[in-house]
Amino acid sequence: MVITRDLAPPAADVASYRAVRDLTESLASPLSPEDQTVQSMDDVSPTKWHRAHTTWFFETFLLLPNLPGYEPFHPDFGFLFNSYYEAVGSRHPRANRGVISRPGVEETAAYRRYVDEAMARLLLRSEPDPDLASLVELGLNHEQQHQELLLMDIKHVLAANPLRPAYHRELEREPETWRPARYLPRPGGLYEVGHAGDGFSFDNELPRHEVKLGDYELADRPVNCGDFLAFIDDGGYHRPELWLSDGWAMVRANGWNAPLYWSGDGESSVYTLGGPLPIDPSEPVCHISYYEADAFARWAGGRLPTEFEWEAASTELGDGHRFSPDWVHPTGGGPHPGGTGQVWEWTGSAYLPYPGFRPAPGAVGEYNGKFMVNQHVLRGGCVATPPGHRRASYRNFFPPGARWPFTGVRIARDPEPTAAR
Amino acid sequence: MVITRDLAPPAADVASYRAVRDLTESLASPLSPEDQTVQSMDDVSPTKWHRAHTTWFFETFLLLPNLPGYEPFHPDFGFLFNSYYEAVGSRHPRANRGVISRPGVEETAAYRRYVDEAMARLLLRSEPDPDLASLVELGLNHEQQHQELLLMDIKHVLAANPLRPAYHRELEREPETWRPARYLPRPGGLYEVGHAGDGFSFDNELPRHEVKLGDYELADRPVNCGDFLAFIDDGGYHRPELWLSDGWAMVRANGWNAPLYWSGDGESSVYTLGGPLPIDPSEPVCHISYYEADAFARWAGGRLPTEFEWEAASTELGDGHRFSPDWVHPTGGGPHPGGTGQVWEWTGSAYLPYPGFRPAPGAVGEYNGKFMVNQHVLRGGCVATPPGHRRASYRNFFPPGARWPFTGVRIARDPEPTAAR
Amino acid sequence: MVITRDLAPPAADVASYRAVRDLTESLASPLSPEDQTVQSMDDVSPTKWHRAHTTWFFETFLLLPNLPGYEPFHPDFGFLFNSYYEAVGSRHPRANRGVISRPGVEETAAYRRYVDEAMARLLLRSEPDPDLASLVELGLNHEQQHQELLLMDIKHVLAANPLRPAYHRELEREPETWRPARYLPRPGGLYEVGHAGDGFSFDNELPRHEVKLGDYELADRPVNCGDFLAFIDDGGYHRPELWLSDGWAMVRANGWNAPLYWSGDGESSVYTLGGPLPIDPSEPVCHISYYEADAFARWAGGRLPTEFEWEAASTELGDGHRFSPDWVHPTGGGPHPGGTGQVWEWTGSAYLPYPGFRPAPGAVGEYNGKFMVNQHVLRGGCVATPPGHRRASYRNFFPPGARWPFTGVRIARDPEPTAAR
Amino acid sequence: MVITRDLAPPAADVASYRAVRDLTESLASPLSPEDQTVQSMDDVSPTKWHRAHTTWFFETFLLLPNLPGYEPFHPDFGFLFNSYYEAVGSRHPRANRGVISRPGVEETAAYRRYVDEAMARLLLRSEPDPDLASLVELGLNHEQQHQELLLMDIKHVLAANPLRPAYHRELEREPETWRPARYLPRPGGLYEVGHAGDGFSFDNELPRHEVKLGDYELADRPVNCGDFLAFIDDGGYHRPELWLSDGWAMVRANGWNAPLYWSGDGESSVYTLGGPLPIDPSEPVCHISYYEADAFARWAGGRLPTEFEWEAASTELGDGHRFSPDWVHPTGGGPHPGGTGQVWEWTGSAYLPYPGFRPAPGAVGEYNGKFMVNQHVLRGGCVATPPGHRRASYRNFFPPGARWPFTGVRIARDPEPTAAR
Repeated sequence: MVITRDLAPPAADVASYRAVRDLTESLASPLSPEDQTVQSMDDVSPTKWHRAHTTWFFETFLLLPNLPGYEPFHPDFGFLFNSYYEAVGSRHPRANRGVISRPGVEETAAYRRYVDEAMARLLLRSEPDPDLASLVELGLNHEQQHQELLLMDIKHVLAANPLRPAYHRELEREPETWRPARYLPRPGGLYEVGHAGDGFSFDNELPRHEVKLGDYELADRPVNCGDFLAFIDDGGYHRPELWLSDGWAMVRANGWNAPLYWSGDGESSVYTLGGPLPIDPSEPVCHISYYEADAFARWAGGRLPTEFEWEAASTELGDGHRFSPDWVHPTGGGPHPGGTGQVWEWTGSAYLPYPGFRPAPGAVGEYNGKFMVNQHVLRGGCVATPPGHRRASYRNFFPPGARWPFTGVRIARDPEPTAAR
Repeated sequence: MVITRDLAPPAADVASYRAVRDLTESLASPLSPEDQTVQSMDDVSPTKWHRAHTTWFFETFLLLPNLPGYEPFHPDFGFLFNSYYEAVGSRHPRANRGVISRPGVEETAAYRRYVDEAMARLLLRSEPDPDLASLVELGLNHEQQHQELLLMDIKHVLAANPLRPAYHRELEREPETWRPARYLPRPGGLYEVGHAGDGFSFDNELPRHEVKLGDYELADRPVNCGDFLAFIDDGGYHRPELWLSDGWAMVRANGWNAPLYWSGDGESSVYTLGGPLPIDPSEPVCHISYYEADAFARWAGGRLPTEFEWEAASTELGDGHRFSPDWVHPTGGGPHPGGTGQVWEWTGSAYLPYPGFRPAPGAVGEYNGKFMVNQHVLRGGCVATPPGHRRASYRNFFPPGARWPFTGVRIARDPEPTAAR
Repeated sequence: MVITRDLAPPAADVASYRAVRDLTESLASPLSPEDQTVQSMDDVSPTKWHRAHTTWFFETFLLLPNLPGYEPFHPDFGFLFNSYYEAVGSRHPRANRGVISRPGVEETAAYRRYVDEAMARLLLRSEPDPDLASLVELGLNHEQQHQELLLMDIKHVLAANPLRPAYHRELEREPETWRPARYLPRPGGLYEVGHAGDGFSFDNELPRHEVKLGDYELADRPVNCGDFLAFIDDGGYHRPELWLSDGWAMVRANGWNAPLYWSGDGESSVYTLGGPLPIDPSEPVCHISYYEADAFARWAGGRLPTEFEWEAASTELGDGHRFSPDWVHPTGGGPHPGGTGQVWEWTGSAYLPYPGFRPAPGAVGEYNGKFMVNQHVLRGGCVATPPGHRRASYRNFFPPGARWPFTGVRIARDPEPTAAR
Repeated sequence: MVITRDLAPPAADVASYRAVRDLTESLASPLSPEDQTVQSMDDVSPTKWHRAHTTWFFETFLLLPNLPGYEPFHPDFGFLFNSYYEAVGSRHPRANRGVISRPGVEETAAYRRYVDEAMARLLLRSEPDPDLASLVELGLNHEQQHQELLLMDIKHVLAANPLRPAYHRELEREPETWRPARYLPRPGGLYEVGHAGDGFSFDNELPRHEVKLGDYELADRPVNCGDFLAFIDDGGYHRPELWLSDGWAMVRANGWNAPLYWSGDGESSVYTLGGPLPIDPSEPVCHISYYEADAFARWAGGRLPTEFEWEAASTELGDGHRFSPDWVHPTGGGPHPGGTGQVWEWTGSAYLPYPGFRPAPGAVGEYNGKFMVNQHVLRGGCVATPPGHRRASYRNFFPPGARWPFTGVRIARDPEPTAAR
């Protein structure tokens, strides 16, 4: 698999469109038709559904309204591949995506080619239209989100198989050196947060506004597996005083005693998209829920940073992002060890609208705002986030119990903490 | 698809083995890898699971104990493809069969070829062994059961797809003439029931024994769709006095108002393996639960026959069986209109051991006896039952709420009924 | 508490009516208003509900149709205290009986007095009416059933309390001598079963009819706690080969490892209505499901008797019944040690209609027939069965997983068993 | 029932202790033993549990550590009446509180008297201890919270009864005049929020800190029933575009089409603690979830205020609080029509720690912090909040789906809204 590593943020031109669309197909290419059909839990979607749904977005929001004479590829795909846009009509229940064997992967590929050909015609029309260009950009960013979802979903699918098959075997792990985390002191004050400039952003990153922060400290690297093993060894999963009440209920109901995908004697093995590997203490811990991130922080004498503390400090942290689906396990290394972009980092901030937030008008406005409850913000991006799809103001979000995304954590603390560890 | 229609009951020889095994592959042949992967509810198994599980039976019970030097095809398939044999070790949870994408259909086919080649060697050994021959017969009858399960399961899978795709399109429906049912009078007395003779039977058909029956009457044909439409039109699904208490709870909890797979305005369409078709009043009604069969019988002024009333009368009813996977919807016609073998006919008998019943020793003894609670007996066979797999003493069984098998009903009544309809 | 121990079978006269009605109140008398309000699981009804529902029966089926000018005590009690009679109108959901605090126990007692006074007027009218007398008899037998339900339900309620309070403390246990069970040989042949004679019976005991039995043997006493401890010590709850498939699933889902109400180190204590007591090996084992009865029988080299084998042998077994709510734990002693009437004995027979069964016409016909699926027959009566409410043809029934009734088992076997124990 | 309406904030003296404890008993006094036993859903606790649990708090945290020679009233009450303090040991499952009939109301009253007598001795000791005084204050504030819970819980219990009984009948409704809401303009800037001064506060109101607010507008009265009827009439419950995604799922799963306790033709009746009453358009709408509050705000062209916007404006809004358990339905009138304290007002703020938050040390520290996820903040107090238990910095919190508390909403908006209504 060859991946262009420095793809620019997608723009509304044919080259950018093709690059994004090709990456999706490249990500699906190691997977059999059977692999692409399975839904291993309600939150997971089959690979072929991701491939079709991202295509449906262009068909529904770009081609049908804007390309005269365009005929839908199939009359029922609007029903099958709508994810949650209530304004666009009824839809197939999410939990049943895995009981749909047809269209199969071949017909799905044909659907993609059909829409891509029409999109090329639309994009090559002489007269440029800024509204349409915005929608194309949104569609490409939407597809990039689904590229990451595709990887985290197929990881869950394959891990559910007792054979623990690999998505891809070309995995070379680079040696790391473990080093202790240091806390960077950060001064309080008024900070501007939110997206700035002309480039693309999602509506939930706006408006840019001022927040008041107190003094705080932020760790210079994410929590790594070694840190987390110490938490486990210290009885972390058996001490209710470390947990939020809802988190403790989850621990007991689900028998959690380690991050998702850890297994083996003494939890010595971790399932990766390259198959099972020994746990490397220097790698960022991944696949933990908000509850586990929060309990770890409390155990460590710290707390989770707010999303604004994170954003205000982000340039100081360095960029450790490295995308490669051959290498879809976070590493502690890369260009900036400890930098952002290895794991999505849970913040203590609930996912809520910024002051003055307005969703985009029309059906695409159902994109972000309607999920602003019962979720927490994550920042930074991860090893599965496509190039060009990250920025300091980017707000990812998941419910606090989610563990199948590539989720980790970086610890903050107040100056002069009373309890140091 | 070419099916040998008059296949003899399977015997422990290479030709018989091949014929049964080939039929399984033939039944799977119209299905894509995606189709063969899906599990649409807990009771349903994916097609590729059926293909592998029947193979596992021969590997586990025949090859490993009896063929010196035999190496299992894959070390983990024993875990993956055990269905419920507790004595053989742990097993993959039934409800999770649909989250396993691998082995895929190609590896499954290779598994079948590998085992078939070894079985050929075992069957061609010079010295014959009656115990081994019995086990081979059991394995082939087991595979025939799974052929029927494969068809009823894939029907449920495909019907769950809003596109309502067909398993196979080569469907020619034969015109029928509707005729009213007549009740055949049957004298009471002592009757021998259970399997007789030297041929193969399952352990649950033994021992043959005497039962005392009173006088009774039995309909000369199964209830057909026209009869059932009259029941519906008369408010059958809305009159609690017609239903068993558990049945009425099912009706309300699930919103039942017609047999499974009926839909459309006025329930005018039925989903078949050939796709949606208009309902033909002269065809036997199919895909009804025990509760619906029982409520219909009460509405009609009759009752369900016991399994012994059915067996004692079976020769009088004629054989209406006709197997063809091209034609997997019951018809009212065939060689003996109204005869047995079109739909499995619910009886009023709970599935219980015969007096003196002894399960076979060893793991294969887990075959029938352990299910003898919470099920009712069905008799006769259906359009999906392979040739050579039916006999008058055959006891099929399902829980009373099951609707996805090819289940219908034939009405009995006591002489001089107080309420005739 | 003073209980008349030799109450005759209830008849349609004022004395009999009063005796039955008074016994209900006597059974409720040790219970506080709080005790009488609780519903500890869906199957259990609050004591005050039993007291009101049995009263509702007389009001609905006797007084309203037959006593001119009768005014219902409360316009909404018809809705609140209907149990399952669909023909009489809608009703309060069973699972919500415990969320109804009003009417409280005082208003319930007033309801009973009001109806009793009206019933006295009805019963003292000059002209006797056989149909009405039959309904009164039915109502009294119905109330006797609820007297037993009241005791088994309040036992479940009180046992759910960590304080393990006693229903009644006046408990004197009589010493028992343990003795091994012996198998009584019984000849096969044609037997008449079902209710005979003019006395009261439920409709499900009719018609009397002939059945063919083979030779069999039946234990001369129920399985006792000592026997069951040996089963447990031999790994009975951990050996899947001993269990029906559904039973094994229940064992694992619910963590069963002993009869209901056993607890303590080595399961040395049993909760009784007199509070926790040491387990007495000579007492009949009680509070076991059909699955446990069946697994025990298989372990012991026997099987469950059919209900007809039980009925045909019943006179030979002797009557060990002794009713006293002071003494609501089965004992191995009494007038006929090993006799029937100490625990309800599971049989291998599914609860199904007898040949020619006809439910009573009208709403009271919803009494027994509508439950004839998914249940097994128990015979004999138990320590909580009121005097006058037992006979050899009596068919009690419960779902196979029920453990809160006073359920035990007596083992049968075929002559010359292959595996004796 | 006589209620002291102007009770001061509770202090650690005998008079204050008695006043708070007496109010609890006064609130329970109209309820029968049966009423006090019922738990109508998992979130609700029985009245007698509230009475015992608040007593347990004093026994566990005050008497056992501080009163030499104190003997617990009952050895098992520590287990039965612990609510969620993990540090104090194991506890009875919350969902099972309603299956415990004993201790009954009389023993519960005796428990209260026993503890009260000991508390009097403790409080009258010569040497004052500030730590102990703080704990007493906490215990009294804790009991006040349970007074409100007692009322909202018993309302749910009684409403579950088809008879719709009243808690108390002495209800005089005062006539109201409906008036349109006006938006008060509020300037942005830096504001101090959180508890100030020496008086009692919960730990979650601290530390006081600065926040940056933009300009905003806040309605001068809560949304009333007339407003909400207009929302319903405009299809509010049937328009997904108005709802958060999780909210829409709740609407559909639960069939919500009006606030909790509304019923009747055209939703013309509302169940109150005084029994069913006609809906008064001028009364604040009550018993709505966060989702309904949010959907209403979107429909009205506004949004929910943040908790800080609410707090910063609170003095401007006036105090409309009026406590009387005779009058436990919010009214639009009172001393300050439109003022705070009639219904708890949902805010858009997730319930999260303030910067620098530290829970109290020890078991009582499990009070507030462990619930800081999956909840939203409500402000203001309600008609069931005891006198002396409200302040501008008070942070109440519930999950967004909760409807059984006395929850309402006040709308905010940004200046110059694009969509006015």
